[in-house]
Formats: sequence, structure tokens, C-alpha cells
Amino acid sequence: MQRRHSLQEIAHLIDADLKGDPNCLINGIMALQSAQSGQISFLDNKRYLKYLVSTQASAVILRAESLKHAPNNALVVVDPYLAFAKVAKLFERVPQISREIHMTVVIGKDCHIHPSVSIAPYVVIGANTHLGEGVVIGAACVIGENVVIGAQSRLASHVSVCADTRIGERVIIHNGSVIGSDGFGLAKENTKWVKIPQLGKVQIGHDVEIGANVSIDRGALDDTIIGDGVKLDNQIQVGHNVTIGENTAIAGCTGIAGSTHIGKNCMIGGGVCINGHIEIVDNVYITGMSSVVHSIRKPGIYSSTHSTQPHREWQKNSVRFRQLDQLAKRLRKTEVLVNSKSIDD
Amino acid sequence: MQRRHSLQEIAHLIDADLKGDPNCLINGIMALQSAQSGQISFLDNKRYLKYLVSTQASAVILRAESLKHAPNNALVVVDPYLAFAKVAKLFERVPQISREIHMTVVIGKDCHIHPSVSIAPYVVIGANTHLGEGVVIGAACVIGENVVIGAQSRLASHVSVCADTRIGERVIIHNGSVIGSDGFGLAKENTKWVKIPQLGKVQIGHDVEIGANVSIDRGALDDTIIGDGVKLDNQIQVGHNVTIGENTAIAGCTGIAGSTHIGKNCMIGGGVCINGHIEIVDNVYITGMSSVVHSIRKPGIYSSTHSTQPHREWQKNSVRFRQLDQLAKRLRKTEVLVNSKSIDD
Amino acid sequence: MQRRHSLQEIAHLIDADLKGDPNCLINGIMALQSAQSGQISFLDNKRYLKYLVSTQASAVILRAESLKHAPNNALVVVDPYLAFAKVAKLFERVPQISREIHMTVVIGKDCHIHPSVSIAPYVVIGANTHLGEGVVIGAACVIGENVVIGAQSRLASHVSVCADTRIGERVIIHNGSVIGSDGFGLAKENTKWVKIPQLGKVQIGHDVEIGANVSIDRGALDDTIIGDGVKLDNQIQVGHNVTIGENTAIAGCTGIAGSTHIGKNCMIGGGVCINGHIEIVDNVYITGMSSVVHSIRKPGIYSSTHSTQPHREWQKNSVRFRQLDQLAKRLRKTEVLVNSKSIDD
Repeated sequence: MQRRHSLQEIAHLIDADLKGDPNCLINGIMALQSAQSGQISFLDNKRYLKYLVSTQASAVILRAESLKHAPNNALVVVDPYLAFAKVAKLFERVPQISREIHMTVVIGKDCHIHPSVSIAPYVVIGANTHLGEGVVIGAACVIGENVVIGAQSRLASHVSVCADTRIGERVIIHNGSVIGSDGFGLAKENTKWVKIPQLGKVQIGHDVEIGANVSIDRGALDDTIIGDGVKLDNQIQVGHNVTIGENTAIAGCTGIAGSTHIGKNCMIGGGVCINGHIEIVDNVYITGMSSVVHSIRKPGIYSSTHSTQPHREWQKNSVRFRQLDQLAKRLRKTEVLVNSKSIDD
Repeated sequence: MQRRHSLQEIAHLIDADLKGDPNCLINGIMALQSAQSGQISFLDNKRYLKYLVSTQASAVILRAESLKHAPNNALVVVDPYLAFAKVAKLFERVPQISREIHMTVVIGKDCHIHPSVSIAPYVVIGANTHLGEGVVIGAACVIGENVVIGAQSRLASHVSVCADTRIGERVIIHNGSVIGSDGFGLAKENTKWVKIPQLGKVQIGHDVEIGANVSIDRGALDDTIIGDGVKLDNQIQVGHNVTIGENTAIAGCTGIAGSTHIGKNCMIGGGVCINGHIEIVDNVYITGMSSVVHSIRKPGIYSSTHSTQPHREWQKNSVRFRQLDQLAKRLRKTEVLVNSKSIDD
Repeated sequence: MQRRHSLQEIAHLIDADLKGDPNCLINGIMALQSAQSGQISFLDNKRYLKYLVSTQASAVILRAESLKHAPNNALVVVDPYLAFAKVAKLFERVPQISREIHMTVVIGKDCHIHPSVSIAPYVVIGANTHLGEGVVIGAACVIGENVVIGAQSRLASHVSVCADTRIGERVIIHNGSVIGSDGFGLAKENTKWVKIPQLGKVQIGHDVEIGANVSIDRGALDDTIIGDGVKLDNQIQVGHNVTIGENTAIAGCTGIAGSTHIGKNCMIGGGVCINGHIEIVDNVYITGMSSVVHSIRKPGIYSSTHSTQPHREWQKNSVRFRQLDQLAKRLRKTEVLVNSKSIDD
């Protein structure tokens, strides 16, 4: 039962200028180099221009500047990537949701579960928890006491949501993520560590997406807060009392230490480490694998990533780096000598 | 049923010098900027001094040097952070433990489960495993064969404890962590990898805390050993045959490659990578996101972290870094020239 | 019921030149410094040569060059590490597999489960999934719809395998790993993020091993592909549409951003970050904690890792790094001055 959509229909959906046959029927979407006849594709990143000429796709979504290279029907738009997002949605296979609570689900007392909620097998839910309309809980999730999950939110399998967590509407949390575990709070008494009770909770706004195997710690006193529209990739660590502003997107493997505040509309690359107790303002872009030690107080692009070199070259330069302060002092001395001699002359 | 404690009582607990009303009743603890009347707060990190003057807290724990800024009752101590840890414990909401084994728990043969143990739903326990007095196992944990977990230890949900693991007393393991999976042991035979059986186990001492989504591999031959009082944050990777000395604390996202030995009382920042087969002595402090390639044989602070710069500045410097060996050679040549001319003069 | 093997038998297994008593019986394998009488050990890494002289092992596997230091029986081979892998296999405790499907397992309709399959308690399997001969599924795994898992593959506990995933034969997946969660695909519409449906799947070849708490995203359009014989350590993140060539091995905590292609027979260290949309050819070796920003088009060793220095030294050099472009320009100016003066002379 394949879905088909005419190019005219698709052009209308994405507000495109259609060059070609409006009645051409499209039954799927695929990358340029893999697309078959009957499928639509798109060109956004110039790296893939080489695949445009020979694509087998029946139509391609692209910018006006690439139209001359299109071998077949074309849909011209301003933002091909956004258009791709919308067209892909036409061909999404939406999993059938059972709208039932599996007989194996263990539910604590005084929970409020909306009748439309779907809960897969072997889920455990603590007392006094609220699940809103249309919530979907994947298999083997464990949800603590006093949790609130807003309407239309979906948890994949193996998600841990600890006690007191507040989750907004239309939130997606992928497999294996942990929301609300204790923050890393320790005080030293003589040589031993004393655990600081973590009394805060996690608050997650609306329309947030959280990847797989992410950890978000509960606050020590105040709460850890993830703003509306925030998008987190996989394997991210968010320390206690961190706040992340609206619509900020963070790529995989990034770690954010405790009590740091990140602004709105930031984009943070993968593998970035962000120090604790600092502030990053709105509209900051941090390139992948950078290390943010100090607060960033002005919007802009920030980096601290060395890219790989052939090992021998890297080694030579790296050894020199260890002498860099000495080299700078020697340069200063040489400058003084040369200049004094210039004056002498 | 709110708990209340008089300032006198609290001052006694933390051995503080009380400035103000000893009968003032405290019903909670909160950060300076969020505290309400009736709550106590604390000032440790100078960054937060700005919030002291206007705090609504009924009392603040602080050092003598900050006393002059306190707007209300004050408790003067030497270490406000440690005092905070102790006071927070007064207001901790201790979850009610059922002290029962849920009817869904699957337990292998020949296990020794102390009658005081609490096990949540859908836990699976292998044969010949011992759980000590007061142990609490969270929902959906899977514990292998021949495991020993000492008295008063607590596992959150979704923890995997693989066969043969030894866990001490008063250990806390947070959600989604994996203890005792196979180490990454491979030998090459022609072009293919041969798996090296991982015959060792994991030994965890007393009073250890392990964060969420941590992985600790079993040893290849000898055991992987986590010493008493070690504290691990979230998303940490500990390779096979690593040993970590007593009371060492490691922040999130740090990775430790196989067969490395880390001393006692070390503090290791977040996002640090530590090479395999090296040794780090006691009392070493490594700043966040550093890369430890070689053994560290003297106590002290070690770093290799560049902090972010505005991207254009970083790029310019980074390009020069790739020329650094050449730059150093050119400097040498110039020095020789200048000096020979000096001699000539 | 201890297994025992004569040295003769072991020498034959690993094609070794036996120096000593062929009838000596070996009952285990252990590291040089921990081995007891009756056990065999090995010397591969020169760092451990110091333990050879005093080892209590009854026999040691080593290279010819180390034979003169061997205190007891010796087995001389070309590759002691590979030989160790094979001998360790003799002493592996193979866990008893039940070859049954636990009564608590929930299986969707139209699944094909080979009669030899073993499934532990509280596993959930979606509709239309195929499990091949001898497959072993650990406790609390969740497997989606339309999944195929090839013969003799083994999943440890808490593994999530999302819908449509294809897994080859003899694949091992360790605890807590997530295969096939949505990729991080977002397009911006005004200030808000639009989710890009992730329509591809994950394909995993034969003889692949995947560590604990790994995340591998499904493709956006095309599939994410893990080639035959690939070995992934713990805590690795593989973005959508990544392809990894045959027999490539990747150490822990490494992250690979979307649409990147990695060749065959590569070795990638721990904590490496690899940018998206790039290509790494076959036979590339990347040292730990490097950052790969651009494509690597020639085989070889690549690095971008600074190793830790004492903090004060690092700080001095790091400050100079921020002046590096200025330093280079000053050097140029000085060279010009000196050379013009040389010409003048």
C-alpha cells in the first residue's frame, strides 16, 4: 500500500516553482545517488552536486542556481533542506500505536493516565504520575514518582525518567536516555567525599527532542531546565542546574558541566565540552570538539579545534608548542637586538 | 509534613558560629537567588556573591570574610560547601523503600538474598548471586550470575551488572550503567580481528558512586578495580584492567583506556581522555577535556585544553600552528644571523 | 571441574616453538605479575618485560628476542598477543545457554524464531522479526518490528534494536546499546526546528562486535552501514548515514557525525571526533582524542592531540598560542629587517 503524491501536490506543499510534469507521481524520497525512478530527491549541500547530473530520481528539490544541472523534473525552492523535511514527512511510516496499556505494565497508586495513552510491555510507573493525552511509552521504560509527561510526548524503549521530572508536550526521548538522575555533587571532608543530596528536579519544555543514551541530571537545589524546542543529539551529558535556552540544538557526545547557562538559538557541535558555572549568551555557534572554559558574552562563532595532520607533522609542531613561550621570548629578544642595531646603524 | 529545624540545631550540626536568631525555623534549603523566607542558603563560590545581598533566605551559611554582606541570619563556617552538603541531607526526601521483592522478579537458583532487600519490578538475577542487607535494586535491572552486592548498596533502574562482579557496601549506581561488559580486546590474524576472551571481572570497593550511563569493562585476565570512595560522574568509560585508587573523583564524559592505573585522591575533569597502559600517581589533578597520553609521575595540576576563541582568530592561529616547526626553525636561523652580525660588529 | 591442557597441546594450537617440559599441565591464563604456578602467561608489550623475570607462571608465550629472560617454560611465537587470544579461549567460561524462550517474553505476530534461539526474561519483540539459528537475546532487550538478526548473534541485556534493523551473523552487541534510533535531522523554519523523518535503517554486517552504551542512528534516507568484521568499543556514537568499512576498529567514546564514510581496516583511537559529510580512506590510523575536520584521502597515521603538561607551563604556551598569528608576522618582519641589513652589509 504505497503512498503516491503528484509533483503538483508536492510543489504546493513546499511552495516550490515546478519545472516539469505536474502529474508525475512520486512514491518515495531518497538521496541523489541512490534514488530510483518514481522517487524524489533534493540537493542542499554543494558536496553532492556531482550526483545531480546522473540521478535516477524523477524529480529533484533544489535552489534556482542548481536548476541548470537538473536532469529531470525540478522543484525550485529557497531552502531545499527544509523542503526535504516536509516532503519526507509524506513518506514516513508511522508505526501503528496500540492505544492500550499492556497487561504487564506496573502502575503505582494515584496516577492519572489519559485513556488515549499507549504503554508497551514491562513499563514501570511510580505513584502520583500524570501522563497526558496521546502519550506513548516504549517497552521497558521506568518512570518514577510524581512525574508529569505532557500530551503527545513519546518515549522510546529503556528510558529512565526519575522522580519529580516535568516533561512538556510533544517531547520525544530516544532509547536508553536517563532524565533526572542525581547530579555529581560532592564536598570533601578530610580525605573523603560527602554526597550532596540532589533536591532539585528536571524540567523539560515543549517540543524538545532528546537522543539516545543521553543523561540529564536533576538539580542540586534549583532545577535543571531544558527550554522549549531544544534538540539534543545522542550521548550528551547535561550536569545539574544547567539551563538551556529555547531552540538551542546540540550535537552528539557533548558534555555540559553543572550550573552553566546556555542561551537561546545556540548551535553547539558534537564532542564539545562546556565548563561548569559559566554563561553562554543567545545565538552562539560553537564548532565541534571545542572546549568552552570561560563564559561567552557575545553572539558569534567560537572554536578551539585542531584538525588532524599527518602524525609526523603534528608531532613536530606539537613539540614546538611545548616551547612556544620560550620561542616568543626568543623572538622578542631578537627583535630588540635587530632594532637596536638598526638604530645604531 | 514539612520538616523544620531551628538555626541553633543546624549550627550545631555543622559546627557553625551563629550570627542571628537561634530560634529561627528553617524548612528548606535553596540557592541564594531562588531562596524564599523560611529557607537557608549558602555562599561558597565567589561568583555568587552578587546574589547574597538581595537573597530572601532566612539564613545563609558562609565564610567569615563574607559575613559583612549577609542581609539576615548567618552561619559562619570554614567550608560552606561541606556544611551545605550536611544541611541538605536534613531536607532530603528519602524515597519510601518497600523492603519487598516484587512478584515479577526472576531469581536464579542458589542466590542469597538478605530478607531486608528491596527489588523493584522486572528485575532479573542470575544464579548464585548474593545481595547483602538493605540492598535496593531499581526496576528493570539485570544482574548476572555469581555477583556479590554488599550491604546498603543501591542500584537505580536499568543497571546491567554482568556475571562475577563484586560490589562493596554503600555503593550507588545510577540508571543505565553497565558494570562488567567485555573489554575491547582484539588481536589481528591476517586482516581479521580475533576476539580475546575477557576472563577477569570488575571489583568495586565500598562507598563508590557511579553516575548514569557509565560503562566499566571486566578485566581481560586480571580484574578491573574501582577503589573505596571513588566517585564517577555520568557517561564515563572505564576500560578493562584499569585500576582507580581510593577517593579519586572523575567528572562526566571522561574515558580511560585499558590497563591504566590511576592513583588515590586524584581529581579528573570532564571530557578527559586517558591513554591505555599508563600510570597516574596519587594526588594528580587533571583539568577538563585534557588528553593524557603519557604517565604522570608527580602530583600536581596538568592540562592540555585550549579554550574557545572567536572562530576567525582561532583559524588564524591554528593555521600558524601547522607551520610552527617551520617558524621555530626560521627563528633559529634569524637568531644565528643576528648574533653572527653582532659578533662581526 | 578445572580444564587442563598440556604445554604440548597449547604449543600445537598456537604453532609455537616449545622450550621446556611438553607435559607441564596448564589450568589457566593470567598476566605476568599475577600468574600462579600452573598458569600460563604472555609477554607482548615491552612495558611488561620487568615482570617476566619474576613471574610465577609455569610457562610464558613470548617472542624469540625475550626468550633469554624467561624464568621457566616458554612458548616462542611471532605474535604473542594473537597467541594469547587463542589460548585464553581455552579457559573461557562459556555461560550456559538455556536454549529456551522465557515464559515472560512478549513476541509480536508473524515472527520467525529459530527453535534453537535463547531469549531471557522480559524481552519484547515486535511483529515480523526474524531471529536466526542459535541467536541469544539477553534479559530486558527490546527489539522492534521487521528486524532480522542472523545466526549465532548475541545481544547482552538492555539492548534496543529499533524497527527494520538488519544484523548479520555472529554479531555481538553489549549491554545498553541502541541500534537504529532516529538520526539528528533538523531543518530550520524561521526560529524553530522541523524534525526530518528518519526513513532509512541500520545494516550491520557479519562478525561485528559493538560495545556497551553505544548509539548507532538509522539513516535519514539511505541506510547507516556497519561493515563485516567492524569492532566498536563502548560509548561510541555513530550518526545517520555513516558507513564504516570492513574490519575497521574504533576505540571508546569516539563520535562520528552524520553521512561520513570510513574506509576498511582503519584503526581509530578513543575519544576521537569525526566531522560529518567527510570521507576517510582505507588503512587510516587516527590517534586517540584527535579531531578529524576534513576528509583524509591518503592512508597513514593522523593526529591532533596535545598531551597534558604541568598546568602552568600549559597556560604559558596556551596564552602564546592565542598570539601565534601575531608572532609569525613579527618573525617575518624581523627576518626582512635582518636580511635587508645583510644585503646592505
